[in-house]
Amino acid sequence: MGTETDNSEYFTSYEDLDVHKIMLEDKPRNLAYKKAILENKDYFKDKIVMDVGCGTGILSIYCAQAGAKKVYAVEASNIAKLAKLVVKENGFENVIEVIQSKVENLTLPGNIKVDAIVSEWMGFYLLHEGMLDSVLYARDKFLKDNGQMFPDSAVIYVAPCSVPTLYNKWDDVDGVSMKVFAKHLRKSKHSKPEIISMNPEDLLGHEITLSWVNLKDDELSDLDSISIQHVVGANKDGLYQGLCIWFVCKFPDFSCTEDEESQYVLDTSPKSPVTHWKQTVIVLPEELEVEEGEPIAFQLDMEKDRFSRRRYNLQMTLLDPNAIEHPQPCSCDMTKCILIKSFMNQNTDPMESETNVLQEENVEDQQ
Amino acid sequence: MGTETDNSEYFTSYEDLDVHKIMLEDKPRNLAYKKAILENKDYFKDKIVMDVGCGTGILSIYCAQAGAKKVYAVEASNIAKLAKLVVKENGFENVIEVIQSKVENLTLPGNIKVDAIVSEWMGFYLLHEGMLDSVLYARDKFLKDNGQMFPDSAVIYVAPCSVPTLYNKWDDVDGVSMKVFAKHLRKSKHSKPEIISMNPEDLLGHEITLSWVNLKDDELSDLDSISIQHVVGANKDGLYQGLCIWFVCKFPDFSCTEDEESQYVLDTSPKSPVTHWKQTVIVLPEELEVEEGEPIAFQLDMEKDRFSRRRYNLQMTLLDPNAIEHPQPCSCDMTKCILIKSFMNQNTDPMESETNVLQEENVEDQQ
Repeated sequence: MGTETDNSEYFTSYEDLDVHKIMLEDKPRNLAYKKAILENKDYFKDKIVMDVGCGTGILSIYCAQAGAKKVYAVEASNIAKLAKLVVKENGFENVIEVIQSKVENLTLPGNIKVDAIVSEWMGFYLLHEGMLDSVLYARDKFLKDNGQMFPDSAVIYVAPCSVPTLYNKWDDVDGVSMKVFAKHLRKSKHSKPEIISMNPEDLLGHEITLSWVNLKDDELSDLDSISIQHVVGANKDGLYQGLCIWFVCKFPDFSCTEDEESQYVLDTSPKSPVTHWKQTVIVLPEELEVEEGEPIAFQLDMEKDRFSRRRYNLQMTLLDPNAIEHPQPCSCDMTKCILIKSFMNQNTDPMESETNVLQEENVEDQQ
Repeated sequence: MGTETDNSEYFTSYEDLDVHKIMLEDKPRNLAYKKAILENKDYFKDKIVMDVGCGTGILSIYCAQAGAKKVYAVEASNIAKLAKLVVKENGFENVIEVIQSKVENLTLPGNIKVDAIVSEWMGFYLLHEGMLDSVLYARDKFLKDNGQMFPDSAVIYVAPCSVPTLYNKWDDVDGVSMKVFAKHLRKSKHSKPEIISMNPEDLLGHEITLSWVNLKDDELSDLDSISIQHVVGANKDGLYQGLCIWFVCKFPDFSCTEDEESQYVLDTSPKSPVTHWKQTVIVLPEELEVEEGEPIAFQLDMEKDRFSRRRYNLQMTLLDPNAIEHPQPCSCDMTKCILIKSFMNQNTDPMESETNVLQEENVEDQQ
């Protein structure tokens, strides 16, 4: 009791507690980690674990519940003081050691190494205001050679979409036309993408992979700048108003073989139960009507901010579908893509056929 | 087109547009004003109106739609530039004059007076970060003697309640006990009350009036400090965890007689469709179990902040139901209140009986 009162004066930022409330109320988030840790009890038993950015300590407690011998729960902010009380409340003060420190400033006694690193480091669209830097730093300094990362991979997806909340209904707001307001509202989203929970019905094409992060091997510099050019065919008639971005994290699964997909995932797609990350939407300045099969081509650039290293800048460029190379096979209805798909379906050697057809088509296009 | 582009650079704060988006998406808010204005067309026809803090201009447009001859739409922030475009989009540039100015710095040509002032000035729990000061200033300077205020009155209500989001479920957050976190979270709400949409099921007693604002007659100083002591009987068994505060605004109704209640209201109670004001909840540091009929006594003080005049400070004090005077009749189950109620139901002269009983009871209590 005395401790609690003494500590409470340190919780200077009350907004912080609301942020942790939001995270603790994010059931898909909690349960993804809980499953990945508690259903891998055989792995965690007697292991030494580090929780990077432990917050209130919930992941460290899952590790202790799974039988970890020792958990270093590292947290730079004052929430560490509260994490200590939470650990005690759950009876794990002999297993979990909460350390208030930046992981970059941390040394462990005897330069001990850990078997596993768990961390919930993900920001909006995975990387924005996340703390992957600290997690990879901790990996390089503290993880044993054969150690495990929880999660161990993450994929960023992108798909074209409609954005009804910013585009539709503004011509009649309870009897008043507000189109010019909506136009400026959309313009304001250029510098700050919209974080919204997207209705899966509003997706206009299949998702494509923007980036794949391998937490066991990637270097930080691999993620300084991400850029893709892509074409996707609209999967229905609709209004193309933006690009929707989300991520999926995967955890090690010791019940499955190398070839199998891990069953332990945290999926923040519009088709999954909503998380506090929701989805990130880059809004087009003007909507475009598209028909089913019509190619949608864009370039997406994510660049780490020069001044604030935890922030990314997103840029989207509309491309001419005739001017860029299409994937093989491609979901769009341009002649060359339909031809490639039919060749591939005929079970000829797909690699050879595609390449030839594509080259022919390219020649035609240039004529 | 040129104008729009030229103006857009002035919309420096994009957060502002999101705030206006939230207000424009608040249907109960829009429709309450729309009804109060458009169903009073006979009143508005050919009138001169002032809209204080017009924002995007939606209320001014309702007034123009209702037949007003002239609307002065006064707005201090840069959103005024956007309001001009919205007015034009709706074809009312000959009726509505958007003026970017603080109303306190405004002069109208020939010291003209207006027939009506419309304003959506309400803040959280009516007064917090609202702009009533500016509305009453405008009334005193610009409104004709027999002019009308839209709305013309507002009432703040308060009722005891449970606050499950801050109290319940924290002993098991997906398998982890977080009671100490929830305790600190609640403590953080002392300095900043919680704005939440309350389930009406969580109300624990009838609402009582905290304050009544008469927009036609009140002086600003009347609202510098509001304080009540009150007792209310719990209307069911439950956990008393906080006080829920909301407001109701009423508009003039020229179809009803003096004695009738206006049918034009904006009601932000937990029982009404949710608005962007939601409800404001003051959270108790510790919950109290109450049984149906048990008296709940409290003092609530609202005081204008000395430094930031648009802010109020709220303070709640738990009182001993034995130590304060109860209303007559009172919904609680204390002997004196039950006796008063039965006397009143017997149709004796209620005032005389109550007073006597109350005095007797008080004497008994002191023994």
